[in-house]
Amino acid sequence: MLQMHDLAGADPDLRFSPYCWRTRFAAAHKGLPLETIPWRFTDREALAFSGQARVPVLRDGERVVFDSWAIAEYLEATTRMPTLFGGVTGQAHARFVNTWADTILLPAIAPLIIGDIMGVIAPEDQAYFRESREQRFGRSLEEVQADRDTRVSAFRQVLLPVRHLLRVQPWIGGTAPSYADHIVLGTMMWPRCVSRFELLQADDPVAAYMERGLDLYGGLGRNAPRA
Amino acid sequence: MLQMHDLAGADPDLRFSPYCWRTRFAAAHKGLPLETIPWRFTDREALAFSGQARVPVLRDGERVVFDSWAIAEYLEATTRMPTLFGGVTGQAHARFVNTWADTILLPAIAPLIIGDIMGVIAPEDQAYFRESREQRFGRSLEEVQADRDTRVSAFRQVLLPVRHLLRVQPWIGGTAPSYADHIVLGTMMWPRCVSRFELLQADDPVAAYMERGLDLYGGLGRNAPRA
Repeated sequence: MLQMHDLAGADPDLRFSPYCWRTRFAAAHKGLPLETIPWRFTDREALAFSGQARVPVLRDGERVVFDSWAIAEYLEATTRMPTLFGGVTGQAHARFVNTWADTILLPAIAPLIIGDIMGVIAPEDQAYFRESREQRFGRSLEEVQADRDTRVSAFRQVLLPVRHLLRVQPWIGGTAPSYADHIVLGTMMWPRCVSRFELLQADDPVAAYMERGLDLYGGLGRNAPRA
Repeated sequence: MLQMHDLAGADPDLRFSPYCWRTRFAAAHKGLPLETIPWRFTDREALAFSGQARVPVLRDGERVVFDSWAIAEYLEATTRMPTLFGGVTGQAHARFVNTWADTILLPAIAPLIIGDIMGVIAPEDQAYFRESREQRFGRSLEEVQADRDTRVSAFRQVLLPVRHLLRVQPWIGGTAPSYADHIVLGTMMWPRCVSRFELLQADDPVAAYMERGLDLYGGLGRNAPRA
């Protein structure tokens, strides 16, 4: 069975990595059972076998694959159907969605929930997390998150391309979800699992899209523990 | 032969619609000759046959197709190869690129070049253009464009997803251009044709990408008249 080290909170069942969620959705899409091993930021030793310091790391027997995009490519190559990408051009286009999520969507979410993450991570991770993230933001995590009620409307603007797309098709993949949806939904699982802050307005088509996404694969997203 | 009404400046050879450019690239990709008919914003009568007030409008014998996305779908359906989308999932994913270009990229370019557009359009279009755009921006076109030297760095941030993508593949379509590239390159033809303002830094990978795009299809973009 496939194994994946999966970022966990103090509660080992709380899983919140936006990258690990992409992999979890992708494996579920393929119908591949995936054993997830709870992992903490500071647990470097557990990943030593991979030469990596970050999750997801996938183990498939002797094979070790890291980086969520590379894992998706690996799953597509080793289990062809149901397809994640719909061919090489679909895969190339999905990579645009991936770079958009990594460079625009994820950085737009981070300052809205970064303080809440402190509240869910394991005690041994807290000093590392605070120090590394405060260095990145140049402010305390509490300060970063403080004005989120006013900043959230700017975040919602970031989702304009998704919102407009949903006017004409139910999934980024078209009539059915593809890995492009796993990228966006996986990224959105991150705030959902660590925070109760409402990122989306109830009547936002993106909120309805997220609800559909939570129901995929037997409610994989919906049944995931939240903070 | 396919015919397309194509937004033109006072100089009928100056063609600058970001949407018409998408269609021109797409037709060239298919190897389909395309007759372009110069059209001005205020020339409503010329489009009356289509029931539309905006270009591109494509005529293929008796068939009339409007909206650049619908035209791309039409070209893909009627001339299968070379493919624009690489299948239904590739097409669905390309539509995300299309909504991103329309809701993020194009609005980020507009305020940087809107004043220059006034300098190239036909006399009969100028009152309409100024009035409609100044209403949209709530300021004079000159004011909108005035601080572009400082605002251009924010525009360059908007291209982050493209820039990161180009680290791993030469085209949004992967190893070869697809309609996703026509969308982005077509949108970038708009500022190129109406303005001499440098949107991109010379060492930006997106600038190199644009150069490659200008050379496609026998230099279709590179040979296009500029302001």
